[in-house]
Amino acid sequence: MATHKLLLLPGDGIGPEVMAEVKRVIDWLDRRGLASFAIEEDLVGGAAYDSCGQPISEEAMAKAFAADAILLGAVGGTKWTHVPYEARPEAGLLRLRKDLQLFANLRPAMCYPALADASSLKRELVEGLDVLIVRELTGGVYFGEPKTITDLSDGQKRAIDTQVYESYEIERIARVAFELARTRRNKVVSTEKHNVMKTGLLWKQVVSEVHGSNYEDVELEHQLADSCGMQLVRAPKQFDVIVTDNLFGDILSDVAAMLTGSLGMLPSASLGGIEEVSGRRRALYEPVHGAAPDIAGKGVANPIAMIGSLAMALRYSFGELAAADRIEAAIAGVLAGGFRTADIYSEGKTRVGTSGMGDAILAELDKAA
Amino acid sequence: MATHKLLLLPGDGIGPEVMAEVKRVIDWLDRRGLASFAIEEDLVGGAAYDSCGQPISEEAMAKAFAADAILLGAVGGTKWTHVPYEARPEAGLLRLRKDLQLFANLRPAMCYPALADASSLKRELVEGLDVLIVRELTGGVYFGEPKTITDLSDGQKRAIDTQVYESYEIERIARVAFELARTRRNKVVSTEKHNVMKTGLLWKQVVSEVHGSNYEDVELEHQLADSCGMQLVRAPKQFDVIVTDNLFGDILSDVAAMLTGSLGMLPSASLGGIEEVSGRRRALYEPVHGAAPDIAGKGVANPIAMIGSLAMALRYSFGELAAADRIEAAIAGVLAGGFRTADIYSEGKTRVGTSGMGDAILAELDKAA
Ligand SMILES: [Mg+2]
Ligand SMILES: [Mg+2]
Repeated sequence: MATHKLLLLPGDGIGPEVMAEVKRVIDWLDRRGLASFAIEEDLVGGAAYDSCGQPISEEAMAKAFAADAILLGAVGGTKWTHVPYEARPEAGLLRLRKDLQLFANLRPAMCYPALADASSLKRELVEGLDVLIVRELTGGVYFGEPKTITDLSDGQKRAIDTQVYESYEIERIARVAFELARTRRNKVVSTEKHNVMKTGLLWKQVVSEVHGSNYEDVELEHQLADSCGMQLVRAPKQFDVIVTDNLFGDILSDVAAMLTGSLGMLPSASLGGIEEVSGRRRALYEPVHGAAPDIAGKGVANPIAMIGSLAMALRYSFGELAAADRIEAAIAGVLAGGFRTADIYSEGKTRVGTSGMGDAILAELDKAA
Repeated sequence: MATHKLLLLPGDGIGPEVMAEVKRVIDWLDRRGLASFAIEEDLVGGAAYDSCGQPISEEAMAKAFAADAILLGAVGGTKWTHVPYEARPEAGLLRLRKDLQLFANLRPAMCYPALADASSLKRELVEGLDVLIVRELTGGVYFGEPKTITDLSDGQKRAIDTQVYESYEIERIARVAFELARTRRNKVVSTEKHNVMKTGLLWKQVVSEVHGSNYEDVELEHQLADSCGMQLVRAPKQFDVIVTDNLFGDILSDVAAMLTGSLGMLPSASLGGIEEVSGRRRALYEPVHGAAPDIAGKGVANPIAMIGSLAMALRYSFGELAAADRIEAAIAGVLAGGFRTADIYSEGKTRVGTSGMGDAILAELDKAA
């Protein structure tokens, strides 16, 4: 059995607590012989700054390059408000994204049946929802130059942002989307504004070319970004994979996540280029939620998004689909069984803390094993 | 009583049919002495092209400049697919927007209680919803230069769009938003991405300055565009007026409209600069729906969005708030009474055609008068 080199970066706030529950699940998989891991661990964010004056050390970066995948907890907190800008906790995560060239942000929007009533949408529209938004993460209007504010002569100012996409950036993310669709329900919706944007025109062309060259077995549909926003609200279950640029992905991934009613429960992944020796795609997995310093250390944080991030790593980095399925089924089972951390508690359910939720998930894994 | 100079441009497809119902409402208001109109009428879109070879004639443009407000039905249809690009039906609408400098697009998202079940959201979250999105319409990334696709040496292409905003563009739309808020629930949410965009940074600064200079009686909140998208889906009734740029407004206005479950029933307005002699703001009102050539001429089109556009003109151009309230109440009353055109028909309701819906609205106006 292949041994998966996994780097754990618990980070700040509730990161270490929720990562502790992931370790228990990793141990369980190891013990059962369902997957084999070589685990490294290091600091990131404020914790790294406190230790070495940098939000991520060179040693940790070396481990990141050596790993098959990275699991990150969360970074940030009021404790580090006054550290130099380039050493702020978020800079550790940004360096990982940049140096590992993590250009594809995967944002699943899944709705656990037991939590469907927490959605603002009608239950039948979201129950069992499973959409995956693939957002381009390293290009587009957030990075293009010129990016300036200029003083004009008359007291006026002019601000400029530039959206730039080159073919290769669109090609590589289109390939990621089509390959992911093949492991799911085999449908991709590509979203842009080709009617009013040149980048949208190129986006649509390149996605169509990539589709025609290698992926004609996958169903492809093009939607304008505003129509896609409407369709997400109207009938989200029509979607399997949505691929879109950095800016539209920023908005649509959050809208889709909010549809599930359990935003704090969602994992995410950021995938990068193919590592030459291993042939494996660089990857970092993390919960969508933040460090939540207000509840850190109290043992009440919900570890499900973090454990779900491990399931994503098993699925998308390690090809361990059976193990990923087991974990996701265990999470759904625990929720169906009424276990709730404080953030998702509702009357009549069983309130548990962080480790209590870990206990319940392990028990569910045992039960199904 | 002031006489309002109103130009009617019924346009193509179902435009003339739904405009005919507006004329009946105008006659009713005139007859009752509730408002006084001087009506002009002309062609736009394919109808104008068929008549004079242009999608809007110079005579019609002169009437548009002379009018206090314009009501437009809809433009376009397959009949004009092959006319020259610059003479296509949409070009008539674009010329009106450009020459009249209609920089502020008002997109109300209202949910009639009788239709709340058509929303994908739970009834309690949308019943009585009344959000007004004020979208900047003439600047931003859809118009900025450079806007190009370049062939690179290696078979790759580079596409560029440029988002540009100058202070004055943000100032004038901020003022529109604050002034509209004063006629409503006195709250503005300004939406941008100042964390990653220079235009967002300038947007936030200028909106804050305009607020501080003249509008401190209006509550102002800043939200990031992705958060605003989430909040629209989670709890849309928290919003009164949302002011945002062209691109974010494009998406958020459609998401908000879809929340109501009755997209085809919504009116819109596009406001421009202040006309010097009259001191009145140039304005064009039109339904969000299109020309629907497939049902044109059959007498089944829903005239509510068109009649709602008249109500918006009464409210925002003519200051005839009482008349606007009457019309909107009559629409709500007719829907509560069970009258439905085909597009919103559901079992057990009374199906009516275009003029039948007009009859019902006039009867409701009579009843309340
Ligand atoms: Mg976002
Ligand atoms: Mg739109």
